[in-house]
Amino acid sequence: MIEPGQVWLVGAGPGDPDLLTRKAEKLIRAASVLFHDALVGAGVLEHALPDTRLVPVGKRSGRHSTDQRTIDALIVEAALAGERVVRLKGGDPAIFGRTMEELTACRRAGIDVRICPGITAASAATASLGTSLTLRAEARRVTFVTAHARKGDPLDLDWGSLALPDTTLAIYMGKAAATEVSRQLIAHGLPRDTPVAWVENASLPSERQFTTRLDLLPLAARTALGDGPAIMLIGQVVAGQNLQLAGRALPPRNAANAACASADCMAVANNAAS
Amino acid sequence: MIEPGQVWLVGAGPGDPDLLTRKAEKLIRAASVLFHDALVGAGVLEHALPDTRLVPVGKRSGRHSTDQRTIDALIVEAALAGERVVRLKGGDPAIFGRTMEELTACRRAGIDVRICPGITAASAATASLGTSLTLRAEARRVTFVTAHARKGDPLDLDWGSLALPDTTLAIYMGKAAATEVSRQLIAHGLPRDTPVAWVENASLPSERQFTTRLDLLPLAARTALGDGPAIMLIGQVVAGQNLQLAGRALPPRNAANAACASADCMAVANNAAS
Repeated sequence: MIEPGQVWLVGAGPGDPDLLTRKAEKLIRAASVLFHDALVGAGVLEHALPDTRLVPVGKRSGRHSTDQRTIDALIVEAALAGERVVRLKGGDPAIFGRTMEELTACRRAGIDVRICPGITAASAATASLGTSLTLRAEARRVTFVTAHARKGDPLDLDWGSLALPDTTLAIYMGKAAATEVSRQLIAHGLPRDTPVAWVENASLPSERQFTTRLDLLPLAARTALGDGPAIMLIGQVVAGQNLQLAGRALPPRNAANAACASADCMAVANNAAS
Repeated sequence: MIEPGQVWLVGAGPGDPDLLTRKAEKLIRAASVLFHDALVGAGVLEHALPDTRLVPVGKRSGRHSTDQRTIDALIVEAALAGERVVRLKGGDPAIFGRTMEELTACRRAGIDVRICPGITAASAATASLGTSLTLRAEARRVTFVTAHARKGDPLDLDWGSLALPDTTLAIYMGKAAATEVSRQLIAHGLPRDTPVAWVENASLPSERQFTTRLDLLPLAARTALGDGPAIMLIGQVVAGQNLQLAGRALPPRNAANAACASADCMAVANNAAS
């Protein structure tokens, strides 16, 4: 399945080993060396054969434990040594995966490099919430964007083209930027009560969800989130009446309150409603 | 895995049975009845057990052989009869899948309904092309939109917010609208030579790819496409230097010509270059 000297960039999906594709599973079994993100969990790595060399090149929100150029060099070196290389990336390699850097490094070295797609966090989070990213009338498009900036850099996003009423926004790596996301989207015209859902550790047993509204997002993000990777979904697709949290539908008027984890958050929600 | 009377909306992925998730495969095996889109191929359906009832509720680009309300009613009826129901949908249920209609029908009937995500066509097409949907500097977001309108209706899209230089557009069901997509995106400011890739039957043995530029898109779409489902990717991620078509990189200057399938398309590309 993998030729010696070939590289496969493989999507590991959101975390649940059952959300690996069959193809990814086969590629993991065929690898002689496997370079994986820190976010790729033990359940996924268990598919590797016992003599496969597992090399963490960990990347977590806000921290890069291995520099991207070093990762590129490790992959190229392994392929040139004749290994069957799998680079296992969280989610889908096509979505905020630094995939082009690794493709380019391989191609410059004359290495045959292929891609196996994966389930991205937005899809997994949407499935867990029991909704869709698109709605026939109210959510006719979906935009995936990252709200992660290099430390010290400002968030340089074109907010006007993100604050659209008929769009679902899926914001990756947005935890640190929650306050700015809320402020800018409201300043650019999104209603203050636009529904927002956060899903942390989507698809894993440790998954946590909460829903709030755009104007309450900063407080909710401070009080309700742990330190796992989280994705934010903004738009009518996460309105209360569409959700099936923990197996039951929430009444729409209470959605902002019902899922707020802390007393502070509840208080703000109640003040806003009064 | 599926309780009697429970419904699972399951993403079948883009077509290649190996791009099913392990979870989808298990759910298909656990179903007593399986309602599937026409686009879901035989290779995927083969995972069903011999005594599972397979019910095509076919949907193809531009044609709905079973009305959505009829599909909703069939699913609800089967669940209320105590069947273990899988509704198998092409791609990812979250992306242009009419998922909310089926969720709502089930919830109104008091049925427990769950979702298993799938690989969407944009991810599969991107993997086949050997690129990424995002680039660190030039493609900082990606928007999925459908260019499918009800017969006779005009395409009612906010073109200004789609014609953004740092965005990748993935246009689903856009074959009939190629001329309008080209004209409107150029009128709203995208450069005429913005790279475009079409991928038809992504991930299947019958997959066809071609690349062109935005101003040549109408002719290319008329001459180079078959009648399979196709996805259009627009933006710098499909620039020639990023691609690895048929296993080798294309020189960037020739990308528009190299993949045009017909003499007509070549002629236009050559005229435009002269």
